[in-house]
Amino acid sequence: MARFLQKELEKMKKMILSLGTIVEERVHMAIKAIETKNADIAARIIQSDHEIDEMEVEVEEECLKILALHQPVAVDLRFLIAVIKINNDLERIGDQAVNIAERVDILAKSKVHDVFFDYSQMAQKAETMLKNSLDAFVNLDIDLAFEILAMDDEVDNIKHEAYDLIKEEMKKQPDCIGYLINLLLISRHLERLADHATNIAEEVIYLIEGDIVRHGKALTD
Amino acid sequence: MARFLQKELEKMKKMILSLGTIVEERVHMAIKAIETKNADIAARIIQSDHEIDEMEVEVEEECLKILALHQPVAVDLRFLIAVIKINNDLERIGDQAVNIAERVDILAKSKVHDVFFDYSQMAQKAETMLKNSLDAFVNLDIDLAFEILAMDDEVDNIKHEAYDLIKEEMKKQPDCIGYLINLLLISRHLERLADHATNIAEEVIYLIEGDIVRHGKALTD
Repeated sequence: MARFLQKELEKMKKMILSLGTIVEERVHMAIKAIETKNADIAARIIQSDHEIDEMEVEVEEECLKILALHQPVAVDLRFLIAVIKINNDLERIGDQAVNIAERVDILAKSKVHDVFFDYSQMAQKAETMLKNSLDAFVNLDIDLAFEILAMDDEVDNIKHEAYDLIKEEMKKQPDCIGYLINLLLISRHLERLADHATNIAEEVIYLIEGDIVRHGKALTD
Repeated sequence: MARFLQKELEKMKKMILSLGTIVEERVHMAIKAIETKNADIAARIIQSDHEIDEMEVEVEEECLKILALHQPVAVDLRFLIAVIKINNDLERIGDQAVNIAERVDILAKSKVHDVFFDYSQMAQKAETMLKNSLDAFVNLDIDLAFEILAMDDEVDNIKHEAYDLIKEEMKKQPDCIGYLINLLLISRHLERLADHATNIAEEVIYLIEGDIVRHGKALTD
């Protein structure tokens, strides 16, 4: 019975990683869409989000089945609850990719061409945080999990830079306000994406240490 | 043993309701802070957020204990998983109250006085959604849960109104851009607050029907 449970837990790990891979891919597409203002990529992200939604439901259903059938305790129980919560965060990261895609679609259709904030650094950091949070989960790597918490501050700093720059641009070019609001909102979506990766890292730390590190600082989501 | 489990589940219901009551109170304070641009109320929301964070951790710990000790199945298992997820949403609603408080603090310190978007309708709807989502959970009231899903669209509509109005104001008054961005972001925080209430309602429907209604439409968080 115990060996059968271990097999089931391995299966859950694989399921959440499959979901993670798809979510990573969507985030990567979203970043590409920002950089190239590409409405086609944006449309593909929006159209395919239902896949992530469906996988999230499957993962949760499977977790509930294992909980009911095997009634795990201690670390196995914590693992499954962590999977349920990480699952939730991954799905919401997928939603952020959709939100970014919607903004990009508006930017792509705009006639404004000369104003842009280079989000590549912020986006790369957020993407790394997501990738590392999943690696930290799979390898139960607590050092990597803590690194993610530190990176979240860097993402916040770039968000403030974007705010200052775009605010100045709004003053200079009031005719481009609609475009600039959408450009600004991309930074909010990237920030929330990074916050969800941070949630995953905190979940990993909790799983390893049994210690709650979340709320050490205010998360914005 | 089964009777003892029922007592534990009742206790969990009470715990999540206590947390819900505090979160409702903070949301109410946040709305009051918006309406009166009151920095003192905003400061109190920010200072007391740790109470919500601590309660969230307690609720999750208690759920894990009950899962490990009583190994519930079927509807009792679903109930506890719902509590864990609702707990998470409530804590994030608390974070939105903090986000609103931070915006209000900036607005209160600004020298701009003549521009404002009246968020009272949007705020009241979001507050009602939160209250009703908790009532729906306690009374397992599926009709009420579905009403919340409909209200979420109304909140989104007001968000669009705020966007249009504030965008126009930005064009007219480029000197007030910083103030107006913060005014705009309040609508995003209220929207996310309403989204979390919607998540709770969807969880309630799942609990009653065993049917997943989430992802029927794209949530923004």
